[in-house]
This record gives sequence, C-alpha cells and structure tokens, in this order.
Amino acid sequence: MAMRVVVLVSGGMDSVVALYAARERHEVVGALSFWYGAKHHPKELPFAAWHCERLGVPHRVITLEFVAALFRSDLLESGGPIPDGHYEEQTMKRTVVPFRNGILLSVAAGYAESIAAQGVVIAAHAGDHAIYPDCRKDFMRAMAGAIRAGTYGRVEVLRPFLRLTKGQIAARGRELGVDFARTWSCYKGGDAHCGTCGTCVERREAFREAGLPDPTSYASAAPLPPRPPPKPGQ
Amino acid sequence: MAMRVVVLVSGGMDSVVALYAARERHEVVGALSFWYGAKHHPKELPFAAWHCERLGVPHRVITLEFVAALFRSDLLESGGPIPDGHYEEQTMKRTVVPFRNGILLSVAAGYAESIAAQGVVIAAHAGDHAIYPDCRKDFMRAMAGAIRAGTYGRVEVLRPFLRLTKGQIAARGRELGVDFARTWSCYKGGDAHCGTCGTCVERREAFREAGLPDPTSYASAAPLPPRPPPKPGQ
Repeated sequence: MAMRVVVLVSGGMDSVVALYAARERHEVVGALSFWYGAKHHPKELPFAAWHCERLGVPHRVITLEFVAALFRSDLLESGGPIPDGHYEEQTMKRTVVPFRNGILLSVAAGYAESIAAQGVVIAAHAGDHAIYPDCRKDFMRAMAGAIRAGTYGRVEVLRPFLRLTKGQIAARGRELGVDFARTWSCYKGGDAHCGTCGTCVERREAFREAGLPDPTSYASAAPLPPRPPPKPGQ
Repeated sequence: MAMRVVVLVSGGMDSVVALYAARERHEVVGALSFWYGAKHHPKELPFAAWHCERLGVPHRVITLEFVAALFRSDLLESGGPIPDGHYEEQTMKRTVVPFRNGILLSVAAGYAESIAAQGVVIAAHAGDHAIYPDCRKDFMRAMAGAIRAGTYGRVEVLRPFLRLTKGQIAARGRELGVDFARTWSCYKGGDAHCGTCGTCVERREAFREAGLPDPTSYASAAPLPPRPPPKPGQ
C-alpha cells in the first residue's frame, strides 16, 4: 500500500538507492540526513542533497551537535584514525557510534509524525554487520516495535532491503538509474575514497558481486582482502 | 545491584525525585536535561541544574534544535496556547511532542554507552497518561528492549517509579529531602505556576494525595476539577 514516507538518506550507496526505490511505491514527503561530526559528512551530505534535489524531494539535514561533542567513536572527527582492513575485524568496532541508528530512527519517527507521514524508510540490509549492534535485525525489529507503540501505530519503520545483500542493492540502483559516482562510502572522508577501509572494501565488493563497473576513483586499488567467515549470530 | 547510571532530569517533580533516589542505589555519573523549544524550559531547566549542582552530579543540557524548528506541538514555543483543565482531556493531546521520550531515551542510551554507564533512569510512573503514547508501559518496555538490542545489552532502561503514583513519588521525595519549591511543572512557563493547566492540576493532586503541604505559589488556586474516570487500556 502506498504511504506518505520519510527516507533516511546519508549519501551512501544503500540509502540513495532506498530513496529512488521508495519513490516507486510511496509518496516521499521528506528525506532526512544527519550531521553528527563524522569525518566523512563533508563528502556524503552533498550527495544526499544532490539526489534529493534531482528527484524533487524536500531534504533536511538535522544537526546532532551532542553526538559530535559527547560521544566516543573513531568515526567522528573527535576520534582516532579509521582503520584499514575488512569490516568484520575487531578494529572496525571503534567506528561504532553508540546507539546511532536508535537516535536517527527516533528523530525520524517524531518528524514523520509531525508531518503526518506514516512510514520511515531505512536502508538496513542483509549484509549489515554484527559489530554494529544497532544495524542487526533484532534491534531493527525491536525499534520498529517501540516506534509503533510510541506513536499509537501511526508510524511504521520500513526496511525494503531487509533481505538484499549490498551487491543486490547496487543492482537495484542500476535499474533505477542511480549515478553511483555521486554516492560516498569512505569513512576517512578524504579527497577520494581510500579503497582500503572497511566501508570502501564493502563498496568494492558490492560492485563486483553485482557484476557492475565501479565508477569510484580509489586512492588505492590494492587487491580486496579475503572475506572472513561469517560469525554465529549474524 | 549498583550500577553506573545516567538520570534524565527535566526539573519537574518526578525526575528530580528520581535523581535523589538514584543516588541511594547507584553511582550517578551524569544527569541529562533537554532543551527542545518548550515554553516552560526557561523555568524548569535552572531547577534541574540547581539540584545536580547541590548533589555534585555532572549535568548536561542537550539541545534538540530540530524539535523546536520542525515538530508540531502546543507544548513548544512554536505551538498554540496550553489548554486548561484535566490532563486526560482531548485538548491536552495537542501538547504531545511526537515520539519525544523515544528521542530522549535514545540520546541518553548513546550517551550512557559513550561514558560506560550501564543504566538510564527515567521517572516514568504509574499515573502516566494514555494521551501520551510514549509514556505508556508498553512503549517503555519496547524501547527498553530496543536499547538492550542496540547496545548488545550494555545499557538498561531503569524505571524505578513504574508502580508509583505521582502522590507516592512526592512522598518519596519528601523522605529524600527534595525541596519541591525548586521544581517546575507548569507547561505555560509563566512567572508562577498557573494552577489550572493539566500538569499544574496533576501537581496539586500529587501533594494532596501525599498529604503534604504544597510549597508552590499558583497564579490561580481555583478548586481542582474532578478526575475523569480511567479509560480502558491505560
């Protein structure tokens, strides 16, 4: 059923595809991005704005100053360097921003209710990682339940990519005409994608899995590291 | 078991008592207040700060500019006038700030995890109202579950007043030496408590129920309206 929805759009591959896909089924009444002091915001947020403008979707960037000032994570300007290597590795844990998706979904739920939207779209997907507890399915399910209870069922969390891998999302984006050169993944936020941090590795793997040309210019095109075996509970 | 906890303190009666009570059982490593554009913030927030300073608890006021700017509620400066009458009445619905407690708890959970606290204390109580969906028990339970899932069980939501009425909280505060003259309830945020809005009526009833002198100076001491009968599902 078509709904009035708000889409969370960071400017990364997945959420940009979610924005384009949402327009196929729903009335997209707003898109939200968040600034919370991450190193890569200056690179990703302009892409979020660009796609929203292209599609005529009202776009707002919400500032979470308190995360930048008070939270601890290497993802943030205030934190240490972004580690290289595969996403699963222990070092990437330092890039977790505590309860970030809970905060983002809560804000989006309140905003959605304020503008009489019935859904919040988030690009959570099957490949999301066990090192990020607030990306996992059981968190998403619990949070969706809390939002339902806390809005008298007026706001639903929609997770259209729940069963898709990142490669399948890339393929879907290709069908929808998404210009992936105008999306940003690298957590380091340098001039170009580094090609070696966990999120760059994941981006490169997604294009490879989808059999698509990767339009990204990487600072280092070192061979992709082998994927670690999946962990129980993922 | 004693925990390191963060307490949500608005400067109202219940949360101030929760702060004093938390110190009896836990190590209170921080107190959070929120500014989000409500009419009564200028009256309540200084009281929150006062009690924290008195108790030597580090206190932070977190600014949620986006609520003030984008959300719709008569509680906010941007909204219409605060209605008079009993809390339960339909008019008080206009003072709901969409998903406010979801947002506050999410922020507090992320902050707690950032400073290695294991609990977030909220003064939700048995008398909380069905017109506020994000005060009800089923929301609180769902949100506590989402926070547990989204932090790998590192942060618990503690609701010490779950089974207490507001009158019983007042009695508990008296035992703990809380100076209730330094707490604020009135949503209108005028020079004195109005005495007639839903939250003033509730404050007056709480002291009466507890058999305590009410130290509050009200602009109008009109007789309390009769309590409407409880509604199903409350």
